[in-house]
Amino acid sequence: MRAFRFLHILIAGLVALALTVGVPSPSSAQQPRARVVLQVSESDPAKWNLALNNAKNIQTDLGAANVDIELVAYGPGIGMLKADSAVGNRVDEALAAGVKVLACENTMRNQKLARGDMLGKVGYVASGVVEIMQKQQQGWAYIRP
Amino acid sequence: MRAFRFLHILIAGLVALALTVGVPSPSSAQQPRARVVLQVSESDPAKWNLALNNAKNIQTDLGAANVDIELVAYGPGIGMLKADSAVGNRVDEALAAGVKVLACENTMRNQKLARGDMLGKVGYVASGVVEIMQKQQQGWAYIRP
Amino acid sequence: MRAFRFLHILIAGLVALALTVGVPSPSSAQQPRARVVLQVSESDPAKWNLALNNAKNIQTDLGAANVDIELVAYGPGIGMLKADSAVGNRVDEALAAGVKVLACENTMRNQKLARGDMLGKVGYVASGVVEIMQKQQQGWAYIRP
Repeated sequence: MRAFRFLHILIAGLVALALTVGVPSPSSAQQPRARVVLQVSESDPAKWNLALNNAKNIQTDLGAANVDIELVAYGPGIGMLKADSAVGNRVDEALAAGVKVLACENTMRNQKLARGDMLGKVGYVASGVVEIMQKQQQGWAYIRP
Repeated sequence: MRAFRFLHILIAGLVALALTVGVPSPSSAQQPRARVVLQVSESDPAKWNLALNNAKNIQTDLGAANVDIELVAYGPGIGMLKADSAVGNRVDEALAAGVKVLACENTMRNQKLARGDMLGKVGYVASGVVEIMQKQQQGWAYIRP
Repeated sequence: MRAFRFLHILIAGLVALALTVGVPSPSSAQQPRARVVLQVSESDPAKWNLALNNAKNIQTDLGAANVDIELVAYGPGIGMLKADSAVGNRVDEALAAGVKVLACENTMRNQKLARGDMLGKVGYVASGVVEIMQKQQQGWAYIRP
């Protein structure tokens, strides 16, 4: 009877271990959901295009439904998301394709920009840099084009 | 009796699972401590200011007590921490505000810089790039301004 | 009898917990294997040299056998790995030293480059940016020189 009890304690341990290892976790080696945050922090439109190319290539390669992409513009990169942006059309395409595009409100305040000055469909975060930090600590990959 | 035993093996598994998911881990999705390493590897003072702005904004948004910030200067970025740095005052302010500021001794050796050539209060690491790697693998976020 | 059963459910939970915490994980705080992916996405040979310096310093500091280094060139960075690269010799040295060097086939297709146009010993990935994402989500550090 004792032996049996010890045996099933061991079995319970192994069952629990198997269950645990199977739990999806952002940091597990076994194929977590693909999630990536792209940083845009430069004023150079060539960099904006690179970031948009990166987003598009990721969606093409993994399938748009299989990956979460967030593009965060802050500091000198905020111009990418202004209404007069040199890449406004491409930003709208990325939004339509399911990319989340976020402007940093800290930066907007510093540059006296209101939401009315920005492309119509972008989203907002209080702080771009904090958003990028937090996403990484939640298991997202980070690409700085 | 058999059924009961099987049942509590399952229950044990679930208890263990719940306990395990509760274990704090640097990469868990449930609010790990905010920690970020900022890389400065360019010789451009505009980038040094951006890195310092990032550090300041992170402290403002999260509260300085709630976040660990480490700024690592290496390669062409080492000039940021030299005694004659264009942003010396701001580096001192960041240090006073609790940001850890570290110079790469590999880079210093290559550029024939001694500690006496650097800002008085900065810290040192043997290798800036290894420091940045290790912090990330310990769960810190990484920002490359 | 009831009390006993409850007790060993608890014990099973603790055993499972101990087992689980002991499972090696790329993101655990207890010294994961050092692994880093280096991004080369700029057309500037100075950046190529910095990336190669980073790889070399990491190997010197940690010991080449103790670290996995992958260098991924994509977008405007692909020129680093062309047969006529300004840093071809250094790339060959890095390969000989055990650094994995990978060219992005998406970029090559866009730039009409065939494998015959590239340095002889480099490897290939379908998408450089996806490779960098996936490595990070598997626990690798990321350095963008």
